[in-house]
Amino acid sequence: MTTASKPPTRGKILLVGLGPGNQEHLTARARSAIAEADTVIGYATYIRLIADLVTGKEVVKKAMAEELDRAIEAYERAKQGKKVAIVSSGDAGVYGMAGPTFEVLFQAGWTPDSGIEVEIIPGASALNTCASLVGAPLTHDFCAISLSDLLTPWPTIARRLNAVAYADFVVALYNPKSGRRTGQIQQAQHIFLQFRDPQTPVAIVKSAFRPKQSIEFTTLEKLHEADISMLTTVLIGNSNTYIKHGLMITPRGYSNKYDVEIGNSAPRDGEKRGISLSTGLNGWLATIHASGKSAAELAQDYRLPEAYIAAVLSEPLEADDEDSEEISE
Amino acid sequence: MTTASKPPTRGKILLVGLGPGNQEHLTARARSAIAEADTVIGYATYIRLIADLVTGKEVVKKAMAEELDRAIEAYERAKQGKKVAIVSSGDAGVYGMAGPTFEVLFQAGWTPDSGIEVEIIPGASALNTCASLVGAPLTHDFCAISLSDLLTPWPTIARRLNAVAYADFVVALYNPKSGRRTGQIQQAQHIFLQFRDPQTPVAIVKSAFRPKQSIEFTTLEKLHEADISMLTTVLIGNSNTYIKHGLMITPRGYSNKYDVEIGNSAPRDGEKRGISLSTGLNGWLATIHASGKSAAELAQDYRLPEAYIAAVLSEPLEADDEDSEEISE
Repeated sequence: MTTASKPPTRGKILLVGLGPGNQEHLTARARSAIAEADTVIGYATYIRLIADLVTGKEVVKKAMAEELDRAIEAYERAKQGKKVAIVSSGDAGVYGMAGPTFEVLFQAGWTPDSGIEVEIIPGASALNTCASLVGAPLTHDFCAISLSDLLTPWPTIARRLNAVAYADFVVALYNPKSGRRTGQIQQAQHIFLQFRDPQTPVAIVKSAFRPKQSIEFTTLEKLHEADISMLTTVLIGNSNTYIKHGLMITPRGYSNKYDVEIGNSAPRDGEKRGISLSTGLNGWLATIHASGKSAAELAQDYRLPEAYIAAVLSEPLEADDEDSEEISE
Repeated sequence: MTTASKPPTRGKILLVGLGPGNQEHLTARARSAIAEADTVIGYATYIRLIADLVTGKEVVKKAMAEELDRAIEAYERAKQGKKVAIVSSGDAGVYGMAGPTFEVLFQAGWTPDSGIEVEIIPGASALNTCASLVGAPLTHDFCAISLSDLLTPWPTIARRLNAVAYADFVVALYNPKSGRRTGQIQQAQHIFLQFRDPQTPVAIVKSAFRPKQSIEFTTLEKLHEADISMLTTVLIGNSNTYIKHGLMITPRGYSNKYDVEIGNSAPRDGEKRGISLSTGLNGWLATIHASGKSAAELAQDYRLPEAYIAAVLSEPLEADDEDSEEISE
């Protein structure tokens, strides 16, 4: 009987998020995953950042737009029982190698119990590392959008930019611009200017935590003049974001509830610590039920779909402790 | 002459992102920042996770909804010249302590050159750590929304949920549910069901990388039955997300360009590696200019605002190499 092609030892693919590429910001597990590997595969720039950690190992450097090749090479070696680390800057799951690797594995008929183990080691993504250098821009709801239309139709990207500009998210733009792709960032600016103040703060962070790090603050209005490349992440503030003393801050809404004075962290009249705002869900439901307005009018007031308003109006209010406390104010 | 109240040594506030709370996933800088501190302040659960790293230090444990108190206590000590680490799970800039701390500092009249240094040490946020445990759910454009209406009006939250559901983002819900707040997750489900297939995969990840870790897959339709608490992050897939072999995968759109077969990573006919898709920005602009359709018709076709379509139609097409290659196909 001939032996099946199963390897004697179990191969492994380790999808490692390097964080910003400064070794101080590697997690212990990222470091040990690289140490554990026989082979390390990745984009040349990232390999260079961990050069001292890969001595003695097989190193496979790849260029941009070769993600599937990297995944295929990892799979070929893991099939032979090797441990292969595929490194991504930031987090492997965020515009990184995790997605392409699973696509390749599934196409090849791999299953989790077929002899190759896969582990993903999370890392801080560019939006977190860049944010940490400029202050507290992300504090509130945020999103990440890639301006790369190498793989995604532009209307899909435009639709997303439009939605988050309208709904007042803090927005991190990945892959904002390259030698070839220069129009997309201008389109993004145009879309945002439909909804957001031209003076909205924007942070341009290049090579975060690396030797050529640079940070520039600008505004939405002047975004097209900024020095932007593939090494940069662009952080666009929401309607409350401000810059003070060289720091970009997005408030979390504390001033809705608290007078933020030193020594006084008591809530404002009518609000309670640890309880939903009077404009939180239950308070809002009570308000709209009591308003006597039509779903269409309320949809306009709150800029929400009429169908949604109609649906919540058709459901009876639930009385609970929280409701009683708020209505009695 | 009486001495001014300037401390003899420069105080420091270190805003540390702990990542998921498993020490293997602390960065070297997070660990050294905690070691450097005289005092460590944080929510009791997070302090417990790093108990062995804080022996011999002053430890100030705080409860939920006491973020401003934590910031105030840090400031008071830093004014005395101490080094204070404020720890947050995940990343300090994502619904963490960075925002509240700067708010307190600014209210107190602090400036970056007034004697207290502030450093933010980034960490992997819950959306990244939870994603790493379920496969590759985030791969494409994603966002984070907090369902906590303790500080944010519900209409604002609803508007954001509506926008990202419409624009087909992968969505991470933070603070999805608590003892008091149970209606918000149901409202979120309702809003998503307006736009997304009821069978859309959802991952419920609790206590990622910690002893009581649990992962549950469900669907949008059954979301209200899932076991959700403040320890969970909810990841809602986009319209392409699927579950296979117990892994949640969001494709990056590679199948728009490549036939993902082992050994064949060549692009499909009409597409080129490293160049924008034929439906990328330049290709799309060429298409809509050539279509002869009105802005209103195109707005319907592409589900984009008519004003945006009208604006791009009014700008002349730029001819460049990339355009020529695509139009000649």
